Amino acid sequence: MATTTPVPPSRKLKVACAGLGRMGQRHANNFLTNVPRAELVAVFTPAPHEIKWASQNLAPLGVAVYDDYDKMLEHESLEAVVIATVTAVHAEQALKAIAKDLHVLSEKPISISDAISQQVIDAAAKKPHLKLMCGFMRRFDSSYRDVKNKIDEGLIGKPIIYYGQTGDKRDPSGFFVQYAQFSGGIFVDCTIHDIDLALWYFGEDVKVKSISASGVAAIEPDLTLHKDVDNAVGTVEFHSGQIATFYATRMMAAGQEDQTWICGTNGKLTVNMAPAINHVTIHDSYGVRREIPQTFFERFQPGFAVEANEFTKAILDDLPVPIDPRGAVHAVKIANALQESVISGKKIYYDENENRIE
Amino acid sequence: MATTTPVPPSRKLKVACAGLGRMGQRHANNFLTNVPRAELVAVFTPAPHEIKWASQNLAPLGVAVYDDYDKMLEHESLEAVVIATVTAVHAEQALKAIAKDLHVLSEKPISISDAISQQVIDAAAKKPHLKLMCGFMRRFDSSYRDVKNKIDEGLIGKPIIYYGQTGDKRDPSGFFVQYAQFSGGIFVDCTIHDIDLALWYFGEDVKVKSISASGVAAIEPDLTLHKDVDNAVGTVEFHSGQIATFYATRMMAAGQEDQTWICGTNGKLTVNMAPAINHVTIHDSYGVRREIPQTFFERFQPGFAVEANEFTKAILDDLPVPIDPRGAVHAVKIANALQESVISGKKIYYDENENRIE
Amino acid sequence: MATTTPVPPSRKLKVACAGLGRMGQRHANNFLTNVPRAELVAVFTPAPHEIKWASQNLAPLGVAVYDDYDKMLEHESLEAVVIATVTAVHAEQALKAIAKDLHVLSEKPISISDAISQQVIDAAAKKPHLKLMCGFMRRFDSSYRDVKNKIDEGLIGKPIIYYGQTGDKRDPSGFFVQYAQFSGGIFVDCTIHDIDLALWYFGEDVKVKSISASGVAAIEPDLTLHKDVDNAVGTVEFHSGQIATFYATRMMAAGQEDQTWICGTNGKLTVNMAPAINHVTIHDSYGVRREIPQTFFERFQPGFAVEANEFTKAILDDLPVPIDPRGAVHAVKIANALQESVISGKKIYYDENENRIE
Amino acid sequence: MATTTPVPPSRKLKVACAGLGRMGQRHANNFLTNVPRAELVAVFTPAPHEIKWASQNLAPLGVAVYDDYDKMLEHESLEAVVIATVTAVHAEQALKAIAKDLHVLSEKPISISDAISQQVIDAAAKKPHLKLMCGFMRRFDSSYRDVKNKIDEGLIGKPIIYYGQTGDKRDPSGFFVQYAQFSGGIFVDCTIHDIDLALWYFGEDVKVKSISASGVAAIEPDLTLHKDVDNAVGTVEFHSGQIATFYATRMMAAGQEDQTWICGTNGKLTVNMAPAINHVTIHDSYGVRREIPQTFFERFQPGFAVEANEFTKAILDDLPVPIDPRGAVHAVKIANALQESVISGKKIYYDENENRIE
Repeated sequence: MATTTPVPPSRKLKVACAGLGRMGQRHANNFLTNVPRAELVAVFTPAPHEIKWASQNLAPLGVAVYDDYDKMLEHESLEAVVIATVTAVHAEQALKAIAKDLHVLSEKPISISDAISQQVIDAAAKKPHLKLMCGFMRRFDSSYRDVKNKIDEGLIGKPIIYYGQTGDKRDPSGFFVQYAQFSGGIFVDCTIHDIDLALWYFGEDVKVKSISASGVAAIEPDLTLHKDVDNAVGTVEFHSGQIATFYATRMMAAGQEDQTWICGTNGKLTVNMAPAINHVTIHDSYGVRREIPQTFFERFQPGFAVEANEFTKAILDDLPVPIDPRGAVHAVKIANALQESVISGKKIYYDENENRIE
Repeated sequence: MATTTPVPPSRKLKVACAGLGRMGQRHANNFLTNVPRAELVAVFTPAPHEIKWASQNLAPLGVAVYDDYDKMLEHESLEAVVIATVTAVHAEQALKAIAKDLHVLSEKPISISDAISQQVIDAAAKKPHLKLMCGFMRRFDSSYRDVKNKIDEGLIGKPIIYYGQTGDKRDPSGFFVQYAQFSGGIFVDCTIHDIDLALWYFGEDVKVKSISASGVAAIEPDLTLHKDVDNAVGTVEFHSGQIATFYATRMMAAGQEDQTWICGTNGKLTVNMAPAINHVTIHDSYGVRREIPQTFFERFQPGFAVEANEFTKAILDDLPVPIDPRGAVHAVKIANALQESVISGKKIYYDENENRIE
Repeated sequence: MATTTPVPPSRKLKVACAGLGRMGQRHANNFLTNVPRAELVAVFTPAPHEIKWASQNLAPLGVAVYDDYDKMLEHESLEAVVIATVTAVHAEQALKAIAKDLHVLSEKPISISDAISQQVIDAAAKKPHLKLMCGFMRRFDSSYRDVKNKIDEGLIGKPIIYYGQTGDKRDPSGFFVQYAQFSGGIFVDCTIHDIDLALWYFGEDVKVKSISASGVAAIEPDLTLHKDVDNAVGTVEFHSGQIATFYATRMMAAGQEDQTWICGTNGKLTVNMAPAINHVTIHDSYGVRREIPQTFFERFQPGFAVEANEFTKAILDDLPVPIDPRGAVHAVKIANALQESVISGKKIYYDENENRIE
Repeated sequence: MATTTPVPPSRKLKVACAGLGRMGQRHANNFLTNVPRAELVAVFTPAPHEIKWASQNLAPLGVAVYDDYDKMLEHESLEAVVIATVTAVHAEQALKAIAKDLHVLSEKPISISDAISQQVIDAAAKKPHLKLMCGFMRRFDSSYRDVKNKIDEGLIGKPIIYYGQTGDKRDPSGFFVQYAQFSGGIFVDCTIHDIDLALWYFGEDVKVKSISASGVAAIEPDLTLHKDVDNAVGTVEFHSGQIATFYATRMMAAGQEDQTWICGTNGKLTVNMAPAINHVTIHDSYGVRREIPQTFFERFQPGFAVEANEFTKAILDDLPVPIDPRGAVHAVKIANALQESVISGKKIYYDENENRIE
């Protein structure tokens, strides 16, 4: 890495950002400051306090601020839209953007429904000049990329068992209970990243053989009202003789602990088994200790910048987007089945074409 | 730890060891050299080459060598027997020793049948002056004990999710295929230690709600002939709202990797996530690296010594044995169900009294 | 960290870069792509192959390419110069830039002579509207900043003993022998960063009491022709009762190993004692291992971006530069004395005003 | 490691232990419980409360308790003496034991005077059937042995730079101030182990070229009354082109931190750079942390057992002792010069025969 950074050509991609909540502000700032070949020209949000924030912080820099998504799509010379609104409107907004011949980078998931996700894919497929990408930002993280390269080089032989953990720091505010109404459940909200990685490492054409999951609402019992849990484990068998296991939790005490390992016939690769936010170690009366990221954004911030740059490059240089959006549909389908299994307690079976066996 | 080691009284427990294979030789040497309060007086093995080894190495030190188990039990003043023969005869030999009023330390499992295991427990229960212990040596490992103490002190709140991994180094000799005929399967042979730990940490009275497992014979396809696999994952739900997950593998490339973590409502404890055989780190052209144990014995050797000393102490000082043997039956029952689930592909359900629901 | 990145105002600082060698190209690309508030308008290099590279890579983006430093300084509207040429001309180029009322970011050291370094400081001090900063990029590294914050918060009490190591990967090409003619020696070339950190952490007004060093040319004996070594250790005592120790080496086998620790009356902080290039761990036949950065640039790349952004911000918002350039003179003085001590074998003493005692 | 432990022959070495303080009790218990081929037959201590302890704890086991060292030496059939009294009497007691034809294992240092240490060596040399060993227990630690083997196998090429750190946990009781009257100073008391290791790894015939040290009494200013410090760094150059550096401190906050690294022409080996008392990691609100040993005995306990067993074996099987006692004299000589340099502030020089150059 890190010899000579390729120099950017002078033309800049005109990008708009829909949604200015937790994720949206980060995407907007990301395109504003970390993407030399892109220019943030517009933002949209329906929320008055976000409008106010944008008026104070983005408008002075020449970014147009809209409270109407459709109007934003009409912004002069606009080329691409980043969709970082609430999940429920991702698909509709993506379809509108595609209809307007705009490239789309959608936050995951495109929809919690695999059927609706597929509609978006289909709409984009009809306009092959358009780029559609789902923001699985871990694919742009240097560690996960390193794992991918090492697997492709054969370092661990054939990957057999995958473990993916998304561990959010415990948030005592009750936010996750409210959020559970719309999130699609912990597997759709969190584990979808781990599912995406498993598919990436195993090969994107693997077919599911069975899905089984278990969970418990250990710290937020009210999650059960929304058919959700705060700790869940799941297992997905593939017809290829590979197995993926998952753990999702909202209960981590130390901080964000997203961990992955993959065991192959000749070796094992792990990511983040000894988490740390930087290179500092503290030796004091609490022992020998390291501080860790508190949020996924602290962990993956550089990945978001790479994602935005590569999406921009794919458009400007007319290259394939780095993530095939069809994988996003597959991941949502698996996440939904895991969530179903947590609630039903039943194991779900599939034939070799991945059709469900009742 | 490590202030003043308690001084041993002068009377020594007279112990015999049955079996002089891989485990048996280690038990014999352990009692010979690491247990000040015990005296190894006799050994038994049916195997001629082991008889020869014992004649050369143990007989000169005054240890009687038998090729007949029943005769060994008649050895003058014998008080206790360590059973380290093949699993298939553990139970029969334990019953005979109990019948002779001898204390028993049995290698795990007492039997691969939970019914037979229970028979041994019942026989011992009728002679309350006798000590019966199943050798779950991880309970004597300083790290696992530290975890137990920290959980009991409330450091991590209520334990919710347990992960236990037994990872044997890949052995290309084909040994495990032969061994699979008698072992009871990978869950009974390997994961039983992890099950025992889960029960220890969750509370030994927890009741199973469901069991589900998946596996693959990735490096030794012939294992399927013996209804076994070389990689298996399993999940056990308990009615207490706790979940244990397991991974057993014969495919580790670097060495023995037995890893455990337990995530509670207020914290997480891990054991051996960064394995290392000692305190040395090598910095060379392969990176920054540590060597790890190659076998479970390298990892757990000090625990075997503690186990033998505590078993001896329990007898000489008439204290309860540190492990309740009833837990061993429970662990075998769970291991068998996991193994059944791997082969059948079915999830197994239990009611609140842990009776199976068909 | 990592909440909302401050949004940049629209005016951009016009920057030129002198030198397009190993460091210069990185600085040029850094200002081109990572500094939203700056615009790279010109570059200078006397080397024909670097001119060619710039003509192909920078000129198309509107960057003017000069082979005459003085002419570059005349570039229209130029406001600031980054000096990344060979050390021997840093001071002269800095003085010329200051004379032209241009802000200066100079690679370290300003000069290997402390007297000449002081002249540059003095020249800048006469024009208080100008910003002069010496590029000690470790001060912009998140780990070293974290250590600074923790010390300032009192986490480790009073810092007493500092250890700083700069470990370059062994380069069998013989480059370092050639380079030693001009570098000022290993302490001036490498350890100056560690000295700067020691002064930062101990307090920039500490006064040296004694300096002593030892070294050996273990892998490149010809270094002795240039009064240099490839492994050197040094100790600097301060009148404040604090001690800094240093190790500089060109002999690291695994990669770049820059390590630091600081031990205080109530705790210890370390940086990079377990080096790693990312979050990946490999478990294979070589053990359990991590790959590490191969060059200082791989280790410190994000710090260079922060440095350039903060230098730009200091100018545009008229804030003090984050590093007082007087510290650079102090660091060079200490580095020169360490280098002298390596060669002479003598310990050097200073009075309480840091005047040398003969 | 850890295949079949060699079986002990039946004859047992009769050993006595002089001194029952902190170290003495450990040595007595060690020979009592961890050395199958030895028998602790007698102990000596001049201290009434230690006599009382021994009467209650050792006498019932058949160990004779003496308050007169000379009388203990007369104990019937006694063969060997472990000297763990205060340093000031080590040499005298060793000489008396040698005079009585008894083997000697002396705690380090034999004497804080190198001349007196040499007298003991000379006395033993006149009786070649006697075994004399100085208790540098780190030589029996599995990690330090591993480093020695790897160096001997050429893994890191020629060792060039050695770093040895002895870090005692901060003890607020003031004990170390009292102790400093007799200890010979921090380099003689602590660093002597690191010096011994440096000589072991570099080759025991290396000749010192220069010695230089600095120190500070940072937490116990009264140490200066006894010409001692609580933090000290030192450098020893050898004529072989190798350099050893040392750090000794009484100020560690987290626990015992004895760390070592050795950098060779082709690699680096480190010991204990990431200290930990076991395999457990805690993830909680303090970060991701490990507990570490609190005392050197917690760190080195297994090494003491190996030391006692190998000393016993050397006598019973008439093998050379594993540590040449002449090295102990060399180590004391270097430690004394380091301590002198701390106090004088002067660098000390030696010619190629290691004669001091004034």
